[in-house]
Amino acid sequence: MNPCDIIRKKRFGGELNEMEIRAFVDGVVDGSFADYQISALLMAICIQGMTDRETLALTLAMAKSGDTLDLSDITGVKADKHSTGGVGDTTSLVLVPLVAACGVKMAKMSGRGLGFTGGTLDKLEAIPGMRVNLGIAEFKRQVSEIGCAIIGQTAELAPADKVLYALRDVTATVDCMPLVVSSILSKKLAAGCDVVVLDTKTGSGAIMDTPEKSRKLAEMMVRIGNLSGKHFSALLTDMDQPLGNYIGNALEVEEAIDILAGRAGGDLKEVALQLGAHILRGAGAVARVEQGVEMLEEKIRSGEGLKKFAEMIAAQGGDARVCEDTGLLPKARAKIDIRADRDGYVESMVTSDIGNAAKLLGAGREHKTDVLDLSVGIVMKKRVGDAVKRGDVLCTLHAGEKSDRTGAYNLMKRSIHISDRKPEKRALIQAVIE
Amino acid sequence: MNPCDIIRKKRFGGELNEMEIRAFVDGVVDGSFADYQISALLMAICIQGMTDRETLALTLAMAKSGDTLDLSDITGVKADKHSTGGVGDTTSLVLVPLVAACGVKMAKMSGRGLGFTGGTLDKLEAIPGMRVNLGIAEFKRQVSEIGCAIIGQTAELAPADKVLYALRDVTATVDCMPLVVSSILSKKLAAGCDVVVLDTKTGSGAIMDTPEKSRKLAEMMVRIGNLSGKHFSALLTDMDQPLGNYIGNALEVEEAIDILAGRAGGDLKEVALQLGAHILRGAGAVARVEQGVEMLEEKIRSGEGLKKFAEMIAAQGGDARVCEDTGLLPKARAKIDIRADRDGYVESMVTSDIGNAAKLLGAGREHKTDVLDLSVGIVMKKRVGDAVKRGDVLCTLHAGEKSDRTGAYNLMKRSIHISDRKPEKRALIQAVIE
Repeated sequence: MNPCDIIRKKRFGGELNEMEIRAFVDGVVDGSFADYQISALLMAICIQGMTDRETLALTLAMAKSGDTLDLSDITGVKADKHSTGGVGDTTSLVLVPLVAACGVKMAKMSGRGLGFTGGTLDKLEAIPGMRVNLGIAEFKRQVSEIGCAIIGQTAELAPADKVLYALRDVTATVDCMPLVVSSILSKKLAAGCDVVVLDTKTGSGAIMDTPEKSRKLAEMMVRIGNLSGKHFSALLTDMDQPLGNYIGNALEVEEAIDILAGRAGGDLKEVALQLGAHILRGAGAVARVEQGVEMLEEKIRSGEGLKKFAEMIAAQGGDARVCEDTGLLPKARAKIDIRADRDGYVESMVTSDIGNAAKLLGAGREHKTDVLDLSVGIVMKKRVGDAVKRGDVLCTLHAGEKSDRTGAYNLMKRSIHISDRKPEKRALIQAVIE
Repeated sequence: MNPCDIIRKKRFGGELNEMEIRAFVDGVVDGSFADYQISALLMAICIQGMTDRETLALTLAMAKSGDTLDLSDITGVKADKHSTGGVGDTTSLVLVPLVAACGVKMAKMSGRGLGFTGGTLDKLEAIPGMRVNLGIAEFKRQVSEIGCAIIGQTAELAPADKVLYALRDVTATVDCMPLVVSSILSKKLAAGCDVVVLDTKTGSGAIMDTPEKSRKLAEMMVRIGNLSGKHFSALLTDMDQPLGNYIGNALEVEEAIDILAGRAGGDLKEVALQLGAHILRGAGAVARVEQGVEMLEEKIRSGEGLKKFAEMIAAQGGDARVCEDTGLLPKARAKIDIRADRDGYVESMVTSDIGNAAKLLGAGREHKTDVLDLSVGIVMKKRVGDAVKRGDVLCTLHAGEKSDRTGAYNLMKRSIHISDRKPEKRALIQAVIE
């Protein structure tokens, strides 16, 4: 099949059939579709759109473009979770051990992520000794025995996505609904789990720029995901401020441990428990979401969640003592407080700027090859709606040797707006899509 | 300026400003716009379109992307002509010497052309000894002294177009109005002539697939061309059958000489004279087109046109005796007649298939590096509307050693439709756009 024929059809708004979509994805992997042909088709897809039928076909073809994991020899329901990405977004580290402690197996493959802060893998690597590059056999054994594992995505899962994402990133075609959906779902389908819960962010730190688009994205992912025969559900959650109060790799591990230990609460915990409860219900462990939340709370109270996290860390070569003593995590050299200039209320935050400030400190990558400083980041002391007095600490920068302190300070200062008006409270969980 | 910002703007239907368009064209030439970014933007342009302001800016930026010819030291008006390309389309070889014989200088740069048959350069090279790779100084001297020259486009004229065209060709973005317009006009503007006449084809062998689009293309070219400050006009001419009766490189030279010698007439002559007359009027040599046609006819009758052609050939190192004896042109080894299966009328032809049949014989290139057989081609014996009897010769294939005779025969046979119905006559010149 000639690439030009496929490109031309989409250029004029036609619906690509399964054969054409498979030919495209095959061509992406075997190189018979050149870079410039791929990017032309991606742009045509961005502008002309794709029907659900096309998006499903694209997702399935991408899922089959490399290795697919067969988890059928692990007994019970296997679950996975995905977030469209945000700031202070550490739900995986909280919910994976908790859900596993409830008896539902979490077999999670994560990315490193380009963006504000590191991905889940980078966070885990803040734990001394922790290995995230397990082989598939080891991964499956660990999930069987302990009930959970979080490892890096092996290169062979959905390799088409790797090529497509790299091109989308440099051709202004990242935020295109069917491409986002197929990128996320193809990897989830290839990873072989039965139940997947999606955390779709909305707000100033989200991939989609309006609440409507975020909701549409969540709906499309659940629709296409369920058409594939797996059990998908999604939450639409607020990212108009950082989800957790700790932003940065070691810092986020610390907050996750605090939550698992029952020492901390707040929005991060609430979203993690809601996501976990949806997994439990999807897996048939509970009948209603509220029962799931209660079951997870119980695993915090009993300490079983934290114990499961320690088991997982130990199994992956990490120093499990961090669960008892977060002082063992890497610490930044300097702490710099940012204080309120005036009295008032925290009216709003620009989450993406906060993420970029964390990146300036060294917590996130600009380029794939950038080396992170796992110790640096930001600790938020105020949340949207809080009353503040002049001189109150709004947040504390944890800076390292290579941090751009001035850049981060100025960006951070600009990103928190204080006014006389107490803002209306935004719902943390804005919608549940099933 | 970041390529992604420019691409994104067009993706969402924005109007690019002059600075953005210049940044794009500069990036195409200096490589800071990668292939895949160029093709993404080209696709966005295809789907979202361009305003006249954008098309003009693109045309001018492309025209300035390399060398520009300064013909100001040649006295008098300098004229050029461009055809969007067809089959049996040899108007240049007829009108260039005729117009020059009327005292208006023709400084023509031509391409080799990928497509049905060779471009004007290939045709000229069918004349023994003919050189088409003159340097600019030699080219200008010849135009000054003899009044006309046809040479190959030097590599440095509008180099952006070369990159863009190569990418359009493999990304299904060839037939996009603003891209076609800027591609054609940028080269014409860089070539430095004052008056340009465009021959826009319509019908089954034309670049645009509907008469409406062909007309729109002609109108846009004249509009944008005139905005650039030069004198442009265009004819919309029929390409629902080959224009001349001779198709192939040496064969087309032969037909041009027959017309210049007053031995042949028909559609090719009519279009060539109309185009030539528009140049004469544009250059101020005549007040009305009909006067131009009459002046050109007179140059045929007097033999001055053929004499001018002989002068041009001699100046470019060719054997000018071909003007008196077309037997000196290369001849194909074999002639194969294709005959009518039935009585009736030639109802229609598929011009593009006829062009492809000529290519199968070896008259045209599939790839840039293909070597042509300048002797091969097709001589049409019937035109649309002609009555035919079973067994009448419809056309004759002139085949060489490497010709795909069977392929050409079968394709040719299918491309001429005979029915009981005498078709209505189509206008040869469907519109004049000024």
